[in-house]
Amino acid sequence: MKADAVQEDIDRVLEVIEKLGFRPHAMPGASRTAIGITGNNGSVDPAHFENLSGVAEAIRVTKPYKLISKDLRPEKSVIKIGNSSIGGDELAIIAGPCAIETQEQVFKVAEAVAKSGAKFFRGGAFKPRTSPYAFQGKGEDGLKIMAEVRERYGLNIVTEAMDERGVDLVEKYGDCIQIGARNMQNFSLLKYVGQTRKPVLLKRGLSATLDEFLLAAEYIMAEGNYDVILCERGIRTFADHARNTMDLSIVPAVNRLTHLPIIIDPSHGTGRNYMVNPLARAGVAVGADGLIIEVHPCPEEALCDGAQALTLDQYAELYAQVNAIHEILAKEEMSIAVS
Amino acid sequence: MKADAVQEDIDRVLEVIEKLGFRPHAMPGASRTAIGITGNNGSVDPAHFENLSGVAEAIRVTKPYKLISKDLRPEKSVIKIGNSSIGGDELAIIAGPCAIETQEQVFKVAEAVAKSGAKFFRGGAFKPRTSPYAFQGKGEDGLKIMAEVRERYGLNIVTEAMDERGVDLVEKYGDCIQIGARNMQNFSLLKYVGQTRKPVLLKRGLSATLDEFLLAAEYIMAEGNYDVILCERGIRTFADHARNTMDLSIVPAVNRLTHLPIIIDPSHGTGRNYMVNPLARAGVAVGADGLIIEVHPCPEEALCDGAQALTLDQYAELYAQVNAIHEILAKEEMSIAVS
Amino acid sequence: MKADAVQEDIDRVLEVIEKLGFRPHAMPGASRTAIGITGNNGSVDPAHFENLSGVAEAIRVTKPYKLISKDLRPEKSVIKIGNSSIGGDELAIIAGPCAIETQEQVFKVAEAVAKSGAKFFRGGAFKPRTSPYAFQGKGEDGLKIMAEVRERYGLNIVTEAMDERGVDLVEKYGDCIQIGARNMQNFSLLKYVGQTRKPVLLKRGLSATLDEFLLAAEYIMAEGNYDVILCERGIRTFADHARNTMDLSIVPAVNRLTHLPIIIDPSHGTGRNYMVNPLARAGVAVGADGLIIEVHPCPEEALCDGAQALTLDQYAELYAQVNAIHEILAKEEMSIAVS
Amino acid sequence: MKADAVQEDIDRVLEVIEKLGFRPHAMPGASRTAIGITGNNGSVDPAHFENLSGVAEAIRVTKPYKLISKDLRPEKSVIKIGNSSIGGDELAIIAGPCAIETQEQVFKVAEAVAKSGAKFFRGGAFKPRTSPYAFQGKGEDGLKIMAEVRERYGLNIVTEAMDERGVDLVEKYGDCIQIGARNMQNFSLLKYVGQTRKPVLLKRGLSATLDEFLLAAEYIMAEGNYDVILCERGIRTFADHARNTMDLSIVPAVNRLTHLPIIIDPSHGTGRNYMVNPLARAGVAVGADGLIIEVHPCPEEALCDGAQALTLDQYAELYAQVNAIHEILAKEEMSIAVS
Repeated sequence: MKADAVQEDIDRVLEVIEKLGFRPHAMPGASRTAIGITGNNGSVDPAHFENLSGVAEAIRVTKPYKLISKDLRPEKSVIKIGNSSIGGDELAIIAGPCAIETQEQVFKVAEAVAKSGAKFFRGGAFKPRTSPYAFQGKGEDGLKIMAEVRERYGLNIVTEAMDERGVDLVEKYGDCIQIGARNMQNFSLLKYVGQTRKPVLLKRGLSATLDEFLLAAEYIMAEGNYDVILCERGIRTFADHARNTMDLSIVPAVNRLTHLPIIIDPSHGTGRNYMVNPLARAGVAVGADGLIIEVHPCPEEALCDGAQALTLDQYAELYAQVNAIHEILAKEEMSIAVS
Repeated sequence: MKADAVQEDIDRVLEVIEKLGFRPHAMPGASRTAIGITGNNGSVDPAHFENLSGVAEAIRVTKPYKLISKDLRPEKSVIKIGNSSIGGDELAIIAGPCAIETQEQVFKVAEAVAKSGAKFFRGGAFKPRTSPYAFQGKGEDGLKIMAEVRERYGLNIVTEAMDERGVDLVEKYGDCIQIGARNMQNFSLLKYVGQTRKPVLLKRGLSATLDEFLLAAEYIMAEGNYDVILCERGIRTFADHARNTMDLSIVPAVNRLTHLPIIIDPSHGTGRNYMVNPLARAGVAVGADGLIIEVHPCPEEALCDGAQALTLDQYAELYAQVNAIHEILAKEEMSIAVS
Repeated sequence: MKADAVQEDIDRVLEVIEKLGFRPHAMPGASRTAIGITGNNGSVDPAHFENLSGVAEAIRVTKPYKLISKDLRPEKSVIKIGNSSIGGDELAIIAGPCAIETQEQVFKVAEAVAKSGAKFFRGGAFKPRTSPYAFQGKGEDGLKIMAEVRERYGLNIVTEAMDERGVDLVEKYGDCIQIGARNMQNFSLLKYVGQTRKPVLLKRGLSATLDEFLLAAEYIMAEGNYDVILCERGIRTFADHARNTMDLSIVPAVNRLTHLPIIIDPSHGTGRNYMVNPLARAGVAVGADGLIIEVHPCPEEALCDGAQALTLDQYAELYAQVNAIHEILAKEEMSIAVS
Repeated sequence: MKADAVQEDIDRVLEVIEKLGFRPHAMPGASRTAIGITGNNGSVDPAHFENLSGVAEAIRVTKPYKLISKDLRPEKSVIKIGNSSIGGDELAIIAGPCAIETQEQVFKVAEAVAKSGAKFFRGGAFKPRTSPYAFQGKGEDGLKIMAEVRERYGLNIVTEAMDERGVDLVEKYGDCIQIGARNMQNFSLLKYVGQTRKPVLLKRGLSATLDEFLLAAEYIMAEGNYDVILCERGIRTFADHARNTMDLSIVPAVNRLTHLPIIIDPSHGTGRNYMVNPLARAGVAVGADGLIIEVHPCPEEALCDGAQALTLDQYAELYAQVNAIHEILAKEEMSIAVS
């Protein structure tokens, strides 16, 4: 739509699309609103829309994905999460323990996270574990503790859901629904979160190609939820010096094709405490919009993934370093768009 | 349990386990019943059981998986599916189209499958598709068509479920619930099918290690459903001459560690029509208990995965060849157990 | 060339190609001779050749490889090695220890290999070892022992060369030069063996695509040595239950594109003693022309790769089983060409 | 050795090692000299050395590699190359075209590289090409042009050798011998460059594990050449959005285990022009000692790898950005050693 299009213009376009038997997707941006169409078999004649009031341009998207595409919306999406956002000028830092264990543990980390200046808190209440006999998370009790974190520290809560019941609970207690790597192609779950109105943090699967990753996001958006943040968390390769291989080249690739923000997870991406800070710096330098970091007051006692969690001191050091790099990038206009 | 243990003995052991606060898993075999214990933190003293009547031996399983383990049950499990079974002396052939399209298409294939001597029919009513805009399957209508196939051709129905609702429907219409590669670590779904009493065909994930694959089976069994058949369907590698890379070495590895049957899927494993027969032969030669094969009366018109479906003639040729190899293996006692 | 073309006709075509400034490659087959052309930039007009005496057809090969291509020579190449051959009706078995250690060890294995009916003996005199401090092979002394094996047991010697000096020595003492996986893209070495007149066994690199593998063979043939046998020996993946992942689908792919024989190496391909026989059976069932197998009189004392070597008894069992499958394939005309 | 050990002390230790039948490796550092021992079977009694004059400590290195190990030499090695060095405080930038084509092309790039402040020039005279029919490089003529670049622009020449003859020529004309990814386990070539006295830039193989990479360096050093620089240039994975997957986590891993410098190659590592700058920034942020970058005056006309070469303007932008990040890292003492 044109920058000066009014709501009436937008509504009229939506109505025309629906009358044609298709599904309209209105995605308002900073200055203009993009409207996507899905549900068509074969191409739709742009002539249907070109002469409607307020329409700037009707473009045919020939890629397998539509709603995530830059063709539809050229500027980066800024996704609101609680009282903050991801995808804007500020580097988004999401920090917290792998699993929610006790209120004491959680508050200790949350205090440090809030003090650092970060706006987001992460913690797992439902843990996807390889073994059925491993600690599976505290469930709703864990979510309640995180809801208290929001009250007390003003942090926005990002936490994983593994099934429909989990999604309902995260909607109730949290601010952003995380879909884990193992569920990236759990299409039923993607459709379900697509019907909620909470933002979704979608992690790349261990062996997902770029197209599969983007189409998983498209699954969510095709249901009407356009607030998707992508997350690179390492892929599975033969390399054995880290738990996974972080594939940072996906950041410029995503930035070239889509308007969605992308963050990186160097904690799961490396699985090694001493690699987290260097890879976090690399992630910011490559152009990511944020980081998700595991922090634990006492990593060696963590019930889950202790080997990769940062201590509170290590977290503070990381926070300073990645923001220094982010500032440099901003100052020299090193934004990926420019380079 | 000893071979001469009576039901009373078994019940007494189950009772003792429950009293200790653990979960017992009774798995009857051809001559003896194995009883697994889960729900314990740390090891359980074998002395609790050794002197109970009918107990042959109490073994501590130190591997991350228990119920799938040969330590618990040394002989191969034979899984009943409808009026037939997988894991016994006969090679199990599961054949049918990728997706259920029309009754006519389905009956045509089913007739050829039944005529060949195969006992199982496959067909997808719920299709996990990479794109939200691709054909997603016919749903319950497709399942109804397959239920008719069972009536008419006496074939046992193997079909995929992608979520809890799908599991309920497959339980109603089918004989074996397939869990696809993308859902191999959808732990909520694994737990759910673990609570049904229909056998489960569990496909290996695209980047699943052997341990992850076996622990996915363990998830199902830990809920009380011991009828799990494993399926190798190719892994994702850099190799680009086939859609996936079939990892046949997993067959002897599975046979060494577990009592579960394993079949292979050369259709998805290669994605190339001309490779299906050679890899099917290789799968039988390596010691697999069966095959799952895509057959379509007219592959070039298939709504899904046509490039890999066999014609009815190609299927007949494959059936003859793999059974000839299977007979040779049986005759020369080339069973994996022996070699 | 036509089947009734005489040597004079062939010489005339070679002469014309040379006059045009290109390089001719005459490859005689069972009934006809194929002549390839390399050294051209851009396409060569077929009209130059079509009317020459004895010419059946002039075809433009548009693939990146030419001399290996079935377009150039439709029937399978049968490569002579010493007093036997690979690529014909008989299954070729190459067996022997990983490394040549002592004459006693070598003769013991050679006796068993000869007795089984196999025609080829393998053994490493130059060992490519990951560590500079590991046993590097016995060098020329090892080759001399193998030359004695040929004298004494009538076996044809297949052994690896790692550099030009090694190639010269293998030419002197052996019958077939093996180029190892790590040297598959050592282009200088490929060119060098291309200038010898000994057959070359070319192993696929650990992460080589089909195209890279075929072009490595093309490097050898472009220098004038057309006697190349391909060998699949497993690729590197994330899977950790075997040392490598055998990619058997490359066998039908190679058979579809090229006239070169391909064998498989289940010893290096799995790195596990108990997997060698099942994967050898699978390799024959998939359509390979032969096998290369590590055998050691006392695997647990082997200086190199003991974990994967078969005992003499295991070897005898394997030999019987793979030949039984090969016969079935021949009987039912299951050759890959047919299927 | 102690910091105050004199040459006489060092010589005495070397003599004792040789008398024991082993090979000594003296590696002088900024303040102290480390002396490695190889050629031993089993462990060597530290008592042989502990009481010799000037000896600070005798340590047993139990890792598979010795000379590259931080156990032997804790501080980072600074490798002299011509009139500059890699591994010190300054970020090393090696830039130039993929292949040497014409003097005009080369001088144009060299001028821009020298002007930027970089100290190293790269260019290929011998090109390892997948196809035997692709441009193979200009050979010695290309090396002569690069020797002129050194004269004229004061740049140090880094260029690849593929075989012994190539090594001799690069020794004659260049300053640093590059061993390409495909030759990382060409052990004969590694031994040969280990006997030269020119520094070696060793690229990681496409599917090399960390251990294999380090042991390839150890091969060179075991021959007496201690001037090895490692280079990460991307590994082969299933991901298809870039030509290779850059594995930046190897940088902290190398820095943790070895004293060798490591640089990264985002040009080959991504194969995409638009990804080179972001990944170069990431490489510096992760802690690499330098970068090797392809630059071409007119990428679309390049004979080789044009799709990834930067224009002169893009190169200038990259140079400014990576140095800004490097300064930040230095200022905040973000060196990998500290973090």
